[in-house]
Amino acid sequence: MPSRDLSPYGDHQPAISAPSPKHAELVALNLLGSTDRAALGRLMRLWSTDIVALTEGRPTPGDTAPELAVPNAALTVTVGFGPRVFTRPGLTAYKPRGLDELPVMRHDRLLPTWSGGDLLIQVGADDPVSVVHAVRRLVADAAPFAKPVWRQTGFWNGTGPDGKPVTGRNLFGQVDGTGNPAVGTPEFDATVWADGPEWFRGGTTLVVRRIRMNLDTWDELTRSEQERAVGRKLATGAPVTGTTEHDELDLQARDADGRLMIAENAHSRLSHHSTNDGRRIFRKGLNYVQDTGASRESGLIFLSYQADVAGQFLPLLARLDAADALNEWTTTIGSAVFAIPPGWHEDGWLARDLLV
Amino acid sequence: MPSRDLSPYGDHQPAISAPSPKHAELVALNLLGSTDRAALGRLMRLWSTDIVALTEGRPTPGDTAPELAVPNAALTVTVGFGPRVFTRPGLTAYKPRGLDELPVMRHDRLLPTWSGGDLLIQVGADDPVSVVHAVRRLVADAAPFAKPVWRQTGFWNGTGPDGKPVTGRNLFGQVDGTGNPAVGTPEFDATVWADGPEWFRGGTTLVVRRIRMNLDTWDELTRSEQERAVGRKLATGAPVTGTTEHDELDLQARDADGRLMIAENAHSRLSHHSTNDGRRIFRKGLNYVQDTGASRESGLIFLSYQADVAGQFLPLLARLDAADALNEWTTTIGSAVFAIPPGWHEDGWLARDLLV
Ligand code: HEM
Ligand code: HEM
Repeated sequence: MPSRDLSPYGDHQPAISAPSPKHAELVALNLLGSTDRAALGRLMRLWSTDIVALTEGRPTPGDTAPELAVPNAALTVTVGFGPRVFTRPGLTAYKPRGLDELPVMRHDRLLPTWSGGDLLIQVGADDPVSVVHAVRRLVADAAPFAKPVWRQTGFWNGTGPDGKPVTGRNLFGQVDGTGNPAVGTPEFDATVWADGPEWFRGGTTLVVRRIRMNLDTWDELTRSEQERAVGRKLATGAPVTGTTEHDELDLQARDADGRLMIAENAHSRLSHHSTNDGRRIFRKGLNYVQDTGASRESGLIFLSYQADVAGQFLPLLARLDAADALNEWTTTIGSAVFAIPPGWHEDGWLARDLLV
Repeated sequence: MPSRDLSPYGDHQPAISAPSPKHAELVALNLLGSTDRAALGRLMRLWSTDIVALTEGRPTPGDTAPELAVPNAALTVTVGFGPRVFTRPGLTAYKPRGLDELPVMRHDRLLPTWSGGDLLIQVGADDPVSVVHAVRRLVADAAPFAKPVWRQTGFWNGTGPDGKPVTGRNLFGQVDGTGNPAVGTPEFDATVWADGPEWFRGGTTLVVRRIRMNLDTWDELTRSEQERAVGRKLATGAPVTGTTEHDELDLQARDADGRLMIAENAHSRLSHHSTNDGRRIFRKGLNYVQDTGASRESGLIFLSYQADVAGQFLPLLARLDAADALNEWTTTIGSAVFAIPPGWHEDGWLARDLLV
């Protein structure tokens, strides 16, 4: 059995362009008052050591449950810095362009429980035990520097019944991720990787939106109403104007009655780069279910990577907030934004160029 | 790729003797006042149809998200009846022996949120999307008859890094499940399957205990203190008196100072059948993590199958409650008990012999 573990090293943090993990946990932490630039550097050195070990399936130094570190779990760790980090002494000059918390949208119902944060850890793996173990080690080692403010857990199934990779579906049953720029293309690189400031070259930014999905009212729709809301077919994810998943959307096509086949307020139209001055983002959602006694909430931990939050993501978000058909069944209850530093190599560590 | 799906049919509900699922959700429901014996029969016929479809990876009749039903997810559904079902008119004569809610133990801190219930659905699969979809269908179809009172989600990793089956570990890092009677042995059959009343032959009972595990105080122990609490080694799960996982415990062995190597209060000693008049149970735990904003709770959804709760499980529980070393780091916060009807064949349905 070939190892599924990625290298922890590289020009970029490795999870971003890897397939969505089956399981992931995101933890946001706030820096303690005492954590200055130098201390943040110490934490990043510590985390870098931890991340190399965990990614390779080995226990971290001082691991209290070393047997829970196992190879071949496809474990990845991604670290980010919230906008407030760049208000700290010695760091204000280094803020990535456009990195600000998002303004509150008209449809947002944000809860502090799921919003903001100075640091982000995102751990993904094939198996939840590995995720839980890695998060535990990283949070424990961060204790002198930062403490958790929120935690979110999600899952994604990107493997078809025949074992082959598929795009995967959200809890509305929709194929979700089709319109993404394909990893490895120039389009992907231009969408995702930042080219400055200097320390941030090869980094990116991540928007985390916790979006509640009302499955009960969604289920009351007919299938064609559901398909109309997005402009894509449920069975295959193909545009309603096409036949296979990756067919181009035909935004001009009209039906026999002269009506646009992909409606004015269809999610696919409003979010398509051709209707957004060419702006693109790279989405990697995670389904979530939150059980609280008898009731349950379901939704999407919507994750979007882009070089520039203010330049690429925000205009798109504002446009969807104003008119998206999906707004009727979705409500954003959490929002956070992070700069994702570039990757590092054997002789380096996370965000060294910012922190030495 | 050979199918991982089990047959939905058989003398027993199929998940019980199958390996632990990677993911599972348990939902307890209470019957509505209007659900009499005949209505319960209608629900069981409905669920039986649903279960056959879901297990085979097909949508249920009226499925609102049919694309989320996929084959090869190793999906299983197990249904149970709580003790109160057998207080309903026409059912009082059929109560399985020993099926009562457990008395509250001295160390219990039970919350109503996680306790009791008239019906149980336990759905397991390789993938959480499949679990969520199946639960949603079963709960929706039950709406005219019963409504959810609690939901619990857990996970287990029973596959080693080389892809081979292993016993798996709980969140203390312990190998958990070693002492179980092996599936297929006469010991297993005698432990698990009930032989009466008539309708219940081939059924069993399930105890669900939600047990909080204090990872922080556990982590403060040395490894040898941790190993002493159970009497087994962390690295391999072997008894502290042996070398490999399935070595017999030597409950008489003493160290150089004449002290018992497996202590008087060690969990393995107190729970071993030889110290319990030969009483055995069959355990299948699921790890859980419950995130609530910044804080998190971890533990075990402890699941125990046995022919007779009062005869096999309760004396063991009382003994552990009185003296178990593990009590210092564990607290039971939920408790429920269910009769698990036998399986059914192509021409039958769930619990038909009780409900026709
Ligand atoms: C729970 C909320 C959401 C759901 C259920 C959802 C669902 C979908 C679906 C089914 C598609 C079509 C398939 C695909 O191309 O992936 C899609 C496309 C897309 N969505 Fe969303 N989405 C949500 C929120 C958002 C948000 C908040 C944004 C950005 C602010 C966004 C941006 C996009 C983009 C850019 C596309 C690709 C359009 C294209 O170029 O074809 N979505 N979404
Ligand atoms: C969170 C709580 C618990 C933890 C962490 C735990 C952990 C363990 C561990 C590590 C073992 C040794 C390996 C094995 O044989 O599986 C074990 C054995 C066992 N436990 Fe538990 N356990 C817990 C609760 C319980 C409860 C509530 C019961 C029953 C009332 C129980 C009954 C048993 C039995 C019967 C054995 C097998 C003993 C033998 O025959 O060797 N455990 N447990």
